[in-house]
Amino acid sequence: MAVNLREKSGDELLQIDGAQVYIGRAGVKKANHDDLTLIVLNANNSVGAVFTQNRFCAAPVHVAKKHLVNEGGIRALVINTGNANAGTGEQGREDALAICAAVAEQIGCDTEQVLPFSTGVILEPLPAAKITTALPGVRPAHWNDAARAIMTTDTVPKAASREGKVGENHTVRATGIAKGAGMIRPNMATMLGFIVTDAKVSQPILQMLTQEAADLSFNSITVDGDTSTNDSFVIVATGKCGQSEIDNIADPRYEQLKNLLNGLALELAQAIVRDGEGATKFITVQVKNAESRADARKVAYAIAHSPLVKTAFFASDPNLGRLLCAIGYAGVESLDTDEVSMYLGDVLVVEKGRRAASYTEEAGQRVMNEAEITVSVDLQSGREQATVYTCDLSKEYVAINADYRS
Amino acid sequence: MAVNLREKSGDELLQIDGAQVYIGRAGVKKANHDDLTLIVLNANNSVGAVFTQNRFCAAPVHVAKKHLVNEGGIRALVINTGNANAGTGEQGREDALAICAAVAEQIGCDTEQVLPFSTGVILEPLPAAKITTALPGVRPAHWNDAARAIMTTDTVPKAASREGKVGENHTVRATGIAKGAGMIRPNMATMLGFIVTDAKVSQPILQMLTQEAADLSFNSITVDGDTSTNDSFVIVATGKCGQSEIDNIADPRYEQLKNLLNGLALELAQAIVRDGEGATKFITVQVKNAESRADARKVAYAIAHSPLVKTAFFASDPNLGRLLCAIGYAGVESLDTDEVSMYLGDVLVVEKGRRAASYTEEAGQRVMNEAEITVSVDLQSGREQATVYTCDLSKEYVAINADYRS
Repeated sequence: MAVNLREKSGDELLQIDGAQVYIGRAGVKKANHDDLTLIVLNANNSVGAVFTQNRFCAAPVHVAKKHLVNEGGIRALVINTGNANAGTGEQGREDALAICAAVAEQIGCDTEQVLPFSTGVILEPLPAAKITTALPGVRPAHWNDAARAIMTTDTVPKAASREGKVGENHTVRATGIAKGAGMIRPNMATMLGFIVTDAKVSQPILQMLTQEAADLSFNSITVDGDTSTNDSFVIVATGKCGQSEIDNIADPRYEQLKNLLNGLALELAQAIVRDGEGATKFITVQVKNAESRADARKVAYAIAHSPLVKTAFFASDPNLGRLLCAIGYAGVESLDTDEVSMYLGDVLVVEKGRRAASYTEEAGQRVMNEAEITVSVDLQSGREQATVYTCDLSKEYVAINADYRS
Repeated sequence: MAVNLREKSGDELLQIDGAQVYIGRAGVKKANHDDLTLIVLNANNSVGAVFTQNRFCAAPVHVAKKHLVNEGGIRALVINTGNANAGTGEQGREDALAICAAVAEQIGCDTEQVLPFSTGVILEPLPAAKITTALPGVRPAHWNDAARAIMTTDTVPKAASREGKVGENHTVRATGIAKGAGMIRPNMATMLGFIVTDAKVSQPILQMLTQEAADLSFNSITVDGDTSTNDSFVIVATGKCGQSEIDNIADPRYEQLKNLLNGLALELAQAIVRDGEGATKFITVQVKNAESRADARKVAYAIAHSPLVKTAFFASDPNLGRLLCAIGYAGVESLDTDEVSMYLGDVLVVEKGRRAASYTEEAGQRVMNEAEITVSVDLQSGREQATVYTCDLSKEYVAINADYRS
């Protein structure tokens, strides 16, 4: 059902010097199924990371945050599906540590140099021994294999690469994978995204780049307040591109690298929406001329989260009053309803807060029939803007979420 | 599909002295269908009202708010279905006024003494002439007829009565009707509730009673921020019970009347949830020992609004990690996840922030199979509480909302 999303082959994804990918079968939830991914990294890389704001953050998130500040740097990422290791208390943290220790022994580093990630059911103990037992058996793999191994209810593996000029005579490469078939909220409570680039970047600068990329991509498909227990997004810079380090934002290469990473993160985040559970439409909600970016995001999310709006998109029904209603309850203090205008695709629907005189049902219907639809709202109350990506709400969404775990 | 909800007969609903009910057929959207309700009131009543917080509030809401402060008192309520008269600008307000004027001429009062209400599609011009033309043809009706005439996608008319002791030797009667098959949010952007009582109450006290009743009932099935363009809740006190006026909260009758009205409003509000679009389960979410009532409501609503939680209830799947996840993202600053406990019905699921040792899948499954389920969350961080009512999210919900208006 994914909207204009196809699986990438191994050839379409760039190898990144300094990173080795492995996958394996731990049988966490299902046998005979790749559910374990190990990414082994060179020394002297740098790592940026952002994690869920959920107060019930999962055990691996606790552990990863601690390990990120270790002195020796990060040497591996280990990811399992089938169990989120969330709502598992102290035992869950011990289980995550046991997995890190097993990886450390296997590749020859300290336990603190391994970052663990989990995705799957919440509130069930992680069978950590299955993972530690399976680790020695992991096999070298390509990025597309890893993209498949981290999937849960995803129907299409999500991976992408970028190669671009960063500095006068250098190119930089980056490859990323992500999982999550998140629609209203990431399914199974988890969105995971990993990007590895051969750029050479200082840790503080890479952290800034990671936060900005997340803000414009993964954090534009799900409300902060709605983040799940395990959401994680990590960028590793191996530094193997042969350049000097980018260690300040005045470096002209900073903007080049930023654009490259933002584009890659956005493609991955959009892939999650395109593969949204039961999705039949990909919807972009742009809000402009808001008093603040926060206001613009409130309006965009009110539209993007409204089940009534989303079911109307599913039905290709130009029931556009539902959009207006969502703008009205978005909680924007400065909203002047008599100034609001709204386009559906290229069709002016609302002008001065009411139906545009030029609007026709036929014009609305024409846009609604498309698989990719942009809603543009102009609040006429400032100069800030925001864009959010979502999909429609279908019967299939309910079926997927009602049947999962059973 | 409604959960334990049945239509009341005319005999089960009390006539209220001072109020006459009429219904008629304006053909606003469909022909041969009662879509117009007129409630004519005696002089010298008092009226309390609460309206949507939506910034795109509908034209009739604008007009009703203005008319409520007129000097002469309210003599009629007029309600149409089929069109919400929202997002209709100045023309919409003129249309609402034209309907009030027609009612006023018919019953012999001022235009300002009529309150208009509309429910239906947003962003389409109201065919006001159809309504003014139909008004002279309305016929006397019972409360159950009115409950049916204000329905939209409701599958069961919603009406209830109460009779109780208010003061030493008096009984007071109240009858209410409501519409809305609101689930995640009120359908067609409208919840309407009307209660008429023969109690004698001063306007300021009745306004207090209306706000409190709304807070515990209609405002406990939908988040303030999610209120629609037309939501309205009105209590009329005709004063015909033959008592002296209740004009202060120290009057012992105040508490008696409050309990009577709160109980009636709650029954009507719960009826909306029981008839929630596609609902197969009625779910009560209780949150206790919160630092503030606002915090308790945040947690209760996070659970009640989560599509993942609601689909799990639909599937009778004790996928209880989804509940824990919702608590975690509710945005409660004071949340100590290690102190949270949670019951599903009588089954302890979460203790000290993780799965209770005593919990078994069988016990969770037993509760999940029931049609009425209570979730109780103890935050252990204060003494405040809140209760919210919701229903599950089924495939039928999507079908209803995708097919509506087509």
